[in-house]
Amino acid sequence: MSKEITSREKDYSQWYIDIVLKAGMADYSAVKGCMVIKPYGYAIWEKMRDALDKMFKDTGHVNAYFPIFIPKSLFEAEEKNAEGFAKECAVVTHYRLKTDPNNKGKLIVDPEAKLEEELIVRPTSEAIIWNTYKGWIQSYRDLPILVNQWANVVRWEMRTRLFLRTAEFLWQEGHTAHATKEEAVEETVKMLNVYSTFAENFMAMPVIKGVKTANERFAGAEDTYCIEAMMQDGKALQAGTSHFLGQNFAKAFDVTFLNKENKKESVWATSWGVSTRLIGALIMTHSDDEGLVLPPNLAPIQVVIVPISKNAEQLATIRLKAEQLMADLKKLNISVKFDDLDHRSPGWKFAEYELKGVPLRIAMGPRDIENNSAEVARRDTRTKTTYSLDNLAGTIENLLAEIQEALYTKALNFRNESITKVDSYEEFKKVLTTKGGFVAAHWDGTPETEEKIKNETKATIRCIPLENEQEAGTCIHSGLPSSQRVLFAMSY
Amino acid sequence: MSKEITSREKDYSQWYIDIVLKAGMADYSAVKGCMVIKPYGYAIWEKMRDALDKMFKDTGHVNAYFPIFIPKSLFEAEEKNAEGFAKECAVVTHYRLKTDPNNKGKLIVDPEAKLEEELIVRPTSEAIIWNTYKGWIQSYRDLPILVNQWANVVRWEMRTRLFLRTAEFLWQEGHTAHATKEEAVEETVKMLNVYSTFAENFMAMPVIKGVKTANERFAGAEDTYCIEAMMQDGKALQAGTSHFLGQNFAKAFDVTFLNKENKKESVWATSWGVSTRLIGALIMTHSDDEGLVLPPNLAPIQVVIVPISKNAEQLATIRLKAEQLMADLKKLNISVKFDDLDHRSPGWKFAEYELKGVPLRIAMGPRDIENNSAEVARRDTRTKTTYSLDNLAGTIENLLAEIQEALYTKALNFRNESITKVDSYEEFKKVLTTKGGFVAAHWDGTPETEEKIKNETKATIRCIPLENEQEAGTCIHSGLPSSQRVLFAMSY
Repeated sequence: MSKEITSREKDYSQWYIDIVLKAGMADYSAVKGCMVIKPYGYAIWEKMRDALDKMFKDTGHVNAYFPIFIPKSLFEAEEKNAEGFAKECAVVTHYRLKTDPNNKGKLIVDPEAKLEEELIVRPTSEAIIWNTYKGWIQSYRDLPILVNQWANVVRWEMRTRLFLRTAEFLWQEGHTAHATKEEAVEETVKMLNVYSTFAENFMAMPVIKGVKTANERFAGAEDTYCIEAMMQDGKALQAGTSHFLGQNFAKAFDVTFLNKENKKESVWATSWGVSTRLIGALIMTHSDDEGLVLPPNLAPIQVVIVPISKNAEQLATIRLKAEQLMADLKKLNISVKFDDLDHRSPGWKFAEYELKGVPLRIAMGPRDIENNSAEVARRDTRTKTTYSLDNLAGTIENLLAEIQEALYTKALNFRNESITKVDSYEEFKKVLTTKGGFVAAHWDGTPETEEKIKNETKATIRCIPLENEQEAGTCIHSGLPSSQRVLFAMSY
Repeated sequence: MSKEITSREKDYSQWYIDIVLKAGMADYSAVKGCMVIKPYGYAIWEKMRDALDKMFKDTGHVNAYFPIFIPKSLFEAEEKNAEGFAKECAVVTHYRLKTDPNNKGKLIVDPEAKLEEELIVRPTSEAIIWNTYKGWIQSYRDLPILVNQWANVVRWEMRTRLFLRTAEFLWQEGHTAHATKEEAVEETVKMLNVYSTFAENFMAMPVIKGVKTANERFAGAEDTYCIEAMMQDGKALQAGTSHFLGQNFAKAFDVTFLNKENKKESVWATSWGVSTRLIGALIMTHSDDEGLVLPPNLAPIQVVIVPISKNAEQLATIRLKAEQLMADLKKLNISVKFDDLDHRSPGWKFAEYELKGVPLRIAMGPRDIENNSAEVARRDTRTKTTYSLDNLAGTIENLLAEIQEALYTKALNFRNESITKVDSYEEFKKVLTTKGGFVAAHWDGTPETEEKIKNETKATIRCIPLENEQEAGTCIHSGLPSSQRVLFAMSY
């Protein structure tokens, strides 16, 4: 069968790519490093976007849209931010093509249409947004500004992987402006909590909330908060970040306001984002060797009904029952598909919907109808149970909730088992190369030690967990004193 | 008052810009020709997008996402399309910046990071999409493909105007692939009808459905269908287009399929789009000298409640009634804002919400509460009526429907009065320069005559209406015979 996917044990990376391609989530494109998000993958992104957008609005945010281009002089204004992204920037230098005089029907870049100032395709929008906020903010009454943007961004990457790391990706970026430091920090943490709630309730993906070390901070931030998830291969994945930007961008773009005492102050900033990378995280959290496994809260198709009939008459009888069930399901806001394509066998369809991670598959044959029942297969456990057609919609609603919960619990157990405490560098290296996962170890708090460990093992500090136990210890590398463990891991 | 806007009579263009800027819909940006869509303007776009997206999905379409960059060699493959857009293309030539050795803290484009092949920032996505479809289509069973994309596009423009013509804009572009010509033409017309229904039911904007002449066709199309609206200054505005692309893109990108008889054929294509330009059309269809007028079906805030109180006690009493009303309105899915900001007077607020086009404004003072009533002001007619608080939510629901209807009727009457039949070139020129609007005239059907009229008068043929009366006549310019009138106009 052409849809077969590589097993995780055989080749984890290939397993991932197989699922992305064969479940129809994304495709490679003609542009190096850029992907095509196919309808099935995009439908998942729409569900993510709608859920997040509602959470943003419920916490007082509004959406806006800023230009994709950033003039170079603005881009370089916040020096750390510019330096951090300089090596990944796509640059527009010309604004016109013309007919190639030497090659009929071909075009060349018109050398006379060179821009006076180059335009950077946004890798992130702090610069263009803070340059705009300058015109929006005069007094404390103009604050806070709580704006979010859904957009595409470009970060040139040499090594790309569908969804996880692509040159262009879709994301949202919140950019808020505040009158006080306290309020900005509060916003930073609030949005981190929105992200963790989303990851847990919708993606069924447990995350650890923490703070990044200085080395791993967003370029231009005072503090980067993050949610870190654990993938099935023992590698960590940064699933979202929320930055407290201090007054760095306000100072770079001269954004001040008159406070209640009529004194001029610089504005405080945050920014926060999640991207289509979450789809990669979703795949690697739940899927198995048969294909994608989707949590019901994000599944574009939550239930598929496959009729099993030998003739048109049987199909008509089944269709009648199926249509009744579909009407009941739609009333419960459950998305359902009835697949009566006749050039595919039921077996082919079973495999297809398994591959696509549809949470529940209902098979209906003539005998089922006679018995007033249907066979329901769960994608997560791959178990089949026969249920009465009486109130089957209600049964399904309960099953979907059960699956959502079960996926989270399974992922949580796996994640918890992936955390290993170690007290020596030997042990640290051993766990990293054998078990993987998060390694909880004491660290002396210096960027130098962090850097040495990274160079020697490739592991980085994923975060200093927010709800961390305080515990005296000694750094696994330098032997210097430490007051808490941090989480190291290999990562995506 | 700083928010005052120029009257239409005094300066129509400035009136438009004043509304856009002062109602907080958009802002100029640091990037030449690009705009910032501010939260209030973006909220209108979200309403448009959600309504259209539902209509697209109800007609069987799904969303996907394709790369923003198009390699030059793909871009030029469909020659007419490439030629049509070549002069408006932003071109990425480099993928990295580096520190300027001569200027500390500044960046320069790294000359060593020049792309082997330039990338065009999409002005439209036929090329990248048809290059992708090549891999998706083998047999007739893979057809039709009914895909839409919500995205940003860039068309370099020398003369820009907020929403109406900007270098970057947001839009949707549908790209469908079909097995037969008939099916593709049917799709083209179906989507034109979706657009006209949307314009009429949501924007309260009447449109004329028609076909473009060869001169005005989309580059690469066999036929361009359009909806044309009439603005208050007598200029026409193309509000949406739906293109029958024939097999042009399939042939340029070698996209073939095996039909039921197992014979290879080229695929048939359509594309169709509307953009943030619709916001400009919306403004110019309904607004007046006091500011924006929004149809209730697209208003981010449909109702605003302004309390009128002299002290905290009065405000508390009003708030109690307002909260009850808001709960009732929310049950009816009516969006409502209670504005109790204390540093602004009721008069200031009245002017502000008038400027922002909020369809209904409710004023509540202590005497109103005593009388169990509230004063409701309609934005469209600027009339005030006092209604009982009993079932006020129901009253408001009816009023909103009434306003939606009234705006459409008013715009329809204006549009109908704007159509003038003329039978001589003298009359044609006179109507164009005095009354404006659509001029319905006989034309000989040749691009040459159309071009001459355009050069002499600046008027173009907006469309050949679909539901056109067949009527023998003679071309106003050449005197040659003609079988129907076409609509000329000055246009945006």
